[in-house]
Amino acid sequence: MTSETPASTERTRIRRLPEKAVDDVAVLHAVLDAARDRLLLHGSTGSRLFRRLAEGIDVCVAVTLLDGMVLARSAFESSMHYRSAVVFGRATEVDDKVAALRAMSEAWLPGRWDTLRPPNARELAATMVLALPLDEWSVKVSDGPPEDAAEDLDAPVWAGVLPIVTSYGDPVPAPDLRGDPQPWAGRFTSGT
Amino acid sequence: MTSETPASTERTRIRRLPEKAVDDVAVLHAVLDAARDRLLLHGSTGSRLFRRLAEGIDVCVAVTLLDGMVLARSAFESSMHYRSAVVFGRATEVDDKVAALRAMSEAWLPGRWDTLRPPNARELAATMVLALPLDEWSVKVSDGPPEDAAEDLDAPVWAGVLPIVTSYGDPVPAPDLRGDPQPWAGRFTSGT
Repeated sequence: MTSETPASTERTRIRRLPEKAVDDVAVLHAVLDAARDRLLLHGSTGSRLFRRLAEGIDVCVAVTLLDGMVLARSAFESSMHYRSAVVFGRATEVDDKVAALRAMSEAWLPGRWDTLRPPNARELAATMVLALPLDEWSVKVSDGPPEDAAEDLDAPVWAGVLPIVTSYGDPVPAPDLRGDPQPWAGRFTSGT
Repeated sequence: MTSETPASTERTRIRRLPEKAVDDVAVLHAVLDAARDRLLLHGSTGSRLFRRLAEGIDVCVAVTLLDGMVLARSAFESSMHYRSAVVFGRATEVDDKVAALRAMSEAWLPGRWDTLRPPNARELAATMVLALPLDEWSVKVSDGPPEDAAEDLDAPVWAGVLPIVTSYGDPVPAPDLRGDPQPWAGRFTSGT
């Protein structure tokens, strides 16, 4: 089940700066890297954490994206742009591991999965994939310009926002690269 | 007291991929944004979390930097470059709040602090600054090229690392900017 608005529970109520609370599920999806109705988690079957999660213990996943520095005329009003999501729930193991792993790979490196050989039985046996439903969640967003007090507006300093941009640098080929494959052409930026 | 090597305790022992454990305090400092012998935390005196921390409860701070995508010839060997630090301890309130706030500001936006008016009494009263000693910690680093199995080396795909670079985008002036101050000239990149 997908909640278009978050379940309003005591543990999802935003207490600090509640005016920054957002109940738009599309913002949740963006913070969670385009997760739609569930959040996929993968790890080693040897991980104590993952074994405990698979037992169905209560879990809380928190994801924060840092989007910019807010330069106000005072240090006190200076802050950061961020988008922060918290999801509560219990995870279950995913039956179709290959489809779930492919979906994660496509989120990170679109098109890469289909260029690789399929996972083999040993690799799949060593990998656990869990799904956490997006039923109980909160999202908090800090954006907009600095909000200086009127008496600070004449300070002779620049004020505004420095966006933080994440991108790929120049690809570094593996030392044992054979043949002449071209560097992988994927690109991404934060904030999408 | 500064530990040049981490206290070896049960809770700082790296269990998963222990070969990635690092005991170089300089790496810890880099992950913690140049913190030297203590980690400074600041927040609102109205924050329940900060009030509890100031009481001296046990705290664990975890910081992870994502440095790159590792593209192997198989999905299974594909991974990420990261640097991850965990610090355990108990925080105490900092006496010289202004000096501590200045140090934090200098870490984020070098030179900015001295262009701003000093914090006033109301602002300082609303701000709590805590220090966590760097005595009990662990650091884990994932770097290097992909480590593919010999039988995958002839796969006709590019393999290597896509570094992840963080930088500032074009400054966005505040709508109420007065006069003609030039955009703040600070720049930073991740991984420093």
